[in-house]
Amino acid sequence: MAKKRVGIIGAGPSGLAQLRAFQSAAENGEDIPEIVCYEAQSDWGGLWNYTWRTGVDDSGFPCHGSMYRYLWSNGPKEGLEFADYTFDEHFGKEIASYPPREVLFDYIKGRVEKAGVRDWIRFNNYVRDVRYDDATGTFTVTARDTARDEETVEVFDHVIVASGHFSTPNVPHYPGFESYNGRILHAHDFRDAREFEGKDILIMGSSYSAEDIGSQCWKYGCNSIISSHRSGPMGYQWPNNWDEAPGLSHVEGKTAHFVDGTSREVDAIILCTGYKHHFPFLPDALRLKTANRLAAADLYKGVVFVPNPKLFYLGMQDQWFTFNMFDAQAWWVRDCIMGKIALPDTATMEADWKQREADEDKLEDDYACIRYQGDYVEELIAETDYPSFDVEAACQAFYEWKKHKKKDIMAFRNYGYVSPMTGKKAPPHHTPWVEALDDSLESYLQTEKQAQSA
Amino acid sequence: MAKKRVGIIGAGPSGLAQLRAFQSAAENGEDIPEIVCYEAQSDWGGLWNYTWRTGVDDSGFPCHGSMYRYLWSNGPKEGLEFADYTFDEHFGKEIASYPPREVLFDYIKGRVEKAGVRDWIRFNNYVRDVRYDDATGTFTVTARDTARDEETVEVFDHVIVASGHFSTPNVPHYPGFESYNGRILHAHDFRDAREFEGKDILIMGSSYSAEDIGSQCWKYGCNSIISSHRSGPMGYQWPNNWDEAPGLSHVEGKTAHFVDGTSREVDAIILCTGYKHHFPFLPDALRLKTANRLAAADLYKGVVFVPNPKLFYLGMQDQWFTFNMFDAQAWWVRDCIMGKIALPDTATMEADWKQREADEDKLEDDYACIRYQGDYVEELIAETDYPSFDVEAACQAFYEWKKHKKKDIMAFRNYGYVSPMTGKKAPPHHTPWVEALDDSLESYLQTEKQAQSA
Repeated sequence: MAKKRVGIIGAGPSGLAQLRAFQSAAENGEDIPEIVCYEAQSDWGGLWNYTWRTGVDDSGFPCHGSMYRYLWSNGPKEGLEFADYTFDEHFGKEIASYPPREVLFDYIKGRVEKAGVRDWIRFNNYVRDVRYDDATGTFTVTARDTARDEETVEVFDHVIVASGHFSTPNVPHYPGFESYNGRILHAHDFRDAREFEGKDILIMGSSYSAEDIGSQCWKYGCNSIISSHRSGPMGYQWPNNWDEAPGLSHVEGKTAHFVDGTSREVDAIILCTGYKHHFPFLPDALRLKTANRLAAADLYKGVVFVPNPKLFYLGMQDQWFTFNMFDAQAWWVRDCIMGKIALPDTATMEADWKQREADEDKLEDDYACIRYQGDYVEELIAETDYPSFDVEAACQAFYEWKKHKKKDIMAFRNYGYVSPMTGKKAPPHHTPWVEALDDSLESYLQTEKQAQSA
Repeated sequence: MAKKRVGIIGAGPSGLAQLRAFQSAAENGEDIPEIVCYEAQSDWGGLWNYTWRTGVDDSGFPCHGSMYRYLWSNGPKEGLEFADYTFDEHFGKEIASYPPREVLFDYIKGRVEKAGVRDWIRFNNYVRDVRYDDATGTFTVTARDTARDEETVEVFDHVIVASGHFSTPNVPHYPGFESYNGRILHAHDFRDAREFEGKDILIMGSSYSAEDIGSQCWKYGCNSIISSHRSGPMGYQWPNNWDEAPGLSHVEGKTAHFVDGTSREVDAIILCTGYKHHFPFLPDALRLKTANRLAAADLYKGVVFVPNPKLFYLGMQDQWFTFNMFDAQAWWVRDCIMGKIALPDTATMEADWKQREADEDKLEDDYACIRYQGDYVEELIAETDYPSFDVEAACQAFYEWKKHKKKDIMAFRNYGYVSPMTGKKAPPHHTPWVEALDDSLESYLQTEKQAQSA
């Protein structure tokens, strides 16, 4: 029998987890399928591969990157640590709990470089179509190699969609946007906070992007921030030059008017209004349609696409857990494809995701949501050989993180947490976050504060 | 015999010309094919349909719009007038020669509203794949209806690609862009010049976008402009706060360094570095690959795709002539599809575009290029029933325009030219362009200068 062929779309954290999962089986002497991983960008890491570009990339396809300069993890690294590759192993020493982007990118790369899976990836390959043929039970993937400017058409037994869902911005319109005299941008296109130095900015939204992009702009010297929420204030103790307003009503010239009748002149409007699940390469029959929630619709065990269970999706849930959850999913999908896990009938798979949705709907607060997703991770890893780890410790890190944010939103990154992998508590960072303007890997990894000024 | 089916991709100036061409035949009692026109945007007009959005549109597909607020035609309207629908007919009076975007948009819409072809267009339909089946000799077009969030798959005898080639930016990288502390944007994402009031800006490039976006920023109060060229200065008499520099070498912080060793601190970098022919919906076998030139590669008569002559492209040339050239092409394509014009053998079609390239390569200056494209327009309209017009008069308008630009780059829009359709000379605009900050249709169409301040 010919080897199975598996196509993976995306070499970000989810896609790389999948490569590592297969490579780990091969390392154990198992006979793994033939793997082709398509990556639109010229390097791996997905969102963690920073680009200065916005809009479309140099091949004319939409820019994947949503990350900005000076980004530090907005959650503790103890919540996302790989069970098979600890921070201590990668850096050779203990590091603080909220690494900047470059440091996390380095960590992600370290594991897959060690695994030696780079050759499985076709970089600069933008998947533009996937079709399923009922007669043969196979998928045909059409991809444009943008570096060579030519197309490939290949057949696979399974396709794993790992293209992420924080790349395609949700951009609402408000009256007056078409004649606003400043800059309107979505968080997806935010790149360098220094651009807003001395500026008065309006942040639309009240979730992570709003918190963090506002905090960045404040840290790098914007003049004032007003953040507009629809469902309620964020509830943090913001600095004096950061106000919260209710929903935006309309814009006139450079003046933003809010639904409570107040107004503010602003130089820029930053839409932190979320992202869409967007799969322009998929036909209706294969396309996941789900809200951004912990229990994604139509996915058995959160990964098997019930309408066509030869198709898998990774990381399509809203996320407290990230890297190690993608691992849990990737190991599970691997075992499913390799026949070690059998799928139940369609009715059972349907019932599974509906039950997960119902369970999620009952959750009463963020702490319960964290626990719920932790349970999901535990459930998956119990069914594969992914190294078991102390999920409860990861939850604890998240719980403390939330409390630290409440206590001081501009100082929560100064704390350290206990690793669920090593049981050791991270050292505090050498410099308070508000003073740490240099986010480079070199600066971050310096052990002594004094070293930074050297 | 069943009616032929024709799929048109795009309802901008070229696609609308094609609809009007078919409707004009129907009006004359001819039996026309069944037409489906796919338009990604929610309204017609292509680039002339202004959007405040940048990056991706509200469906997650790349924004088509490259136009900005306060844009006035950068060439005389006498060069682009429709032969079957004059400016005088549309506006009921004579108007000046350089209308703002809204005025030209109104004119474009006027013709197709009169023709009654709006129902042929499927708005919010993003074509994501076109395939040709050798066995049946037909095309299968897959389109996503983004408003209804579902896909259609339909079969056509002919496909006409009218999706434009000034929508996908060409974005070069220079060292330091990844750590520049201001905003970097392509002309495609430029929207409101007032955003740059008081700013020092760097314009990269020396073609139309560079000229015009620089002029806009200057008109609306930027502090200074430096424009960087690779092949030579633009050669106009710029205002005192506008300098020209040679090529950019690199960027450090907010400082732009040029290849001659000079440098300038700038708040924004606007890349006026051109556009790409980009057809993400086409497989290699159907995809036009051409430089942006007057004689496009692989197109017999500038419109028939030689490798598959059932496929047509409109408006893929670099352009002096625009709207009436698209008309000339659309009428010709219509007659070809309707069997009134027969195609020669492949070798003859190959020889045709190669000869056009060779002829273009011999042209010595812009005046010769204008004449060359004028000859092309004349050639096509002589072979259809498109109303014959005085192409020489259109060329004359272009020649004078070039001289007026040389004379005063900030004042050329104050002149009027002779219509090739009516033979009448346009009146001067009521307000010098540099003083006309209000670019609305209402303001523009006022006959008396006094009326503007009323």
